[in-house]
Amino acid sequence: MSQASVRAAFQGERGAYSEAAAVAFFGESVEVKPCPDFDTVFEAVTSGQVNHGVLPVENSLAGSIHRNYDLLLRFDLSIVGEVQIPIAHQLIALPGVTLSDVKKVYSHPQALAQCEHSISRILPQAKRITTYDTAGSVKMIKEQHITDGAGLASARSADIYGMNILQPDMQDNPENYTRFVVVGREPVEPPGEAKTSIVFSMENIPGALFKSLAVFALRDIDPTKIESRPLQGKRLQYFLYIDFIGSPHQAHCRNALHNLQEMTSYFKLLGVYPRNV
Amino acid sequence: MSQASVRAAFQGERGAYSEAAAVAFFGESVEVKPCPDFDTVFEAVTSGQVNHGVLPVENSLAGSIHRNYDLLLRFDLSIVGEVQIPIAHQLIALPGVTLSDVKKVYSHPQALAQCEHSISRILPQAKRITTYDTAGSVKMIKEQHITDGAGLASARSADIYGMNILQPDMQDNPENYTRFVVVGREPVEPPGEAKTSIVFSMENIPGALFKSLAVFALRDIDPTKIESRPLQGKRLQYFLYIDFIGSPHQAHCRNALHNLQEMTSYFKLLGVYPRNV
Repeated sequence: MSQASVRAAFQGERGAYSEAAAVAFFGESVEVKPCPDFDTVFEAVTSGQVNHGVLPVENSLAGSIHRNYDLLLRFDLSIVGEVQIPIAHQLIALPGVTLSDVKKVYSHPQALAQCEHSISRILPQAKRITTYDTAGSVKMIKEQHITDGAGLASARSADIYGMNILQPDMQDNPENYTRFVVVGREPVEPPGEAKTSIVFSMENIPGALFKSLAVFALRDIDPTKIESRPLQGKRLQYFLYIDFIGSPHQAHCRNALHNLQEMTSYFKLLGVYPRNV
Repeated sequence: MSQASVRAAFQGERGAYSEAAAVAFFGESVEVKPCPDFDTVFEAVTSGQVNHGVLPVENSLAGSIHRNYDLLLRFDLSIVGEVQIPIAHQLIALPGVTLSDVKKVYSHPQALAQCEHSISRILPQAKRITTYDTAGSVKMIKEQHITDGAGLASARSADIYGMNILQPDMQDNPENYTRFVVVGREPVEPPGEAKTSIVFSMENIPGALFKSLAVFALRDIDPTKIESRPLQGKRLQYFLYIDFIGSPHQAHCRNALHNLQEMTSYFKLLGVYPRNV
């Protein structure tokens, strides 16, 4: 999906995986705004500083990023799109640095953990040094002109900082994907196949959770995500996050959502958007 | 639940939240074995080096820890218990160090992020420095005798390293809990109220996911967790993680699991254990 002169905010340094997701969604012409945290991304969209925010919501290894679901409840923005990208950690160093020069590997602890076996195989003597951010490790190596170290980050961050990929695809598990949602101030009405994201909670009645799901099963609506999240301090009370294929513009989905709201104590439509994952 | 001379493995340094969970479950007499990663915990239990492993499976802010679910599938261990503890980050320094001495705050990036507002309020000038581990930051301050810094970690880590809590409960969101499972080599048969954890997948037939849940709804079985996890590269195919109240020793639960297995292409009983959360 390519669009001209769109401004999109994301969390992280230039070259972060979230930036790669923004480019995968909007195309190379997107103007990106790096933000220090997720709250700032939501604020930048709400205030109109940018058109859109691009936010990770689930990783295939690390699970859902509940923080962003919390912010989706707190801010009044709509999900208007989704994009999934592979998380492929590249071993990145200054031009001229070779594998045998590398004594230290810098990255975010999660990236170091995800590349543990590759590092042990390729650089058995290397020391692991944690940094705040994957792309930030590459930026630091560049700025401090570190010639005996390499970072683990996206291919994009090598490009941005003019650095060299010493070894591609260091992640031990190739099945490493992150799904991002794109948020905006106004809801969209997708022309083609749509996906709808909702969140709801229910009173504590026996079987409430399974019964709420029956409203979809009865109408052969296909979910792409179901996740319960306990309401702390309340036994058997949950937020349910559901993504399903279809849109409230279709009668069977609209009816399912009406039926659901007969049972829910809280309901929020997070967005309706073109299906892309 | 107190037991004498139990050996339990956990991931992290001494004083980690996982150690606090082991003590909450087994009592102070538990002999703990810190491990560098989750795989090593599973291996230590499998080989008989320890009786049990204590593993985080979900955090109220950060979501499910899929890595441990992967290892539950790979290793042949049973969940034999569960315990939930609050994640309360304490600001910890060397004895004699006061708040006004603190120019640097050390911790795991996730802990620093979870205390961002408290740090800004209490120590507006402090620099954040990331470390690999929460308890590890306290250990480092102790070992390197850092007198102008403080770590963010569990109260237990202050005790273990003989350090001082400068400011308790730095986490911005008080609703920060982690649920741990206790694994062992042999399944248990809980005497009282039980919880059962299962994982399954299904062929890609329309509505399969919701239909599989109907086997529980039909029998008024209450789930405490439902989570879908996409099988990468396969549209509309999932692993489903379900925890429910009851045990296969009860006819209605046994029947539900039989009914479920008429539809599943993969099914694993992860464990039956006394309900504690």
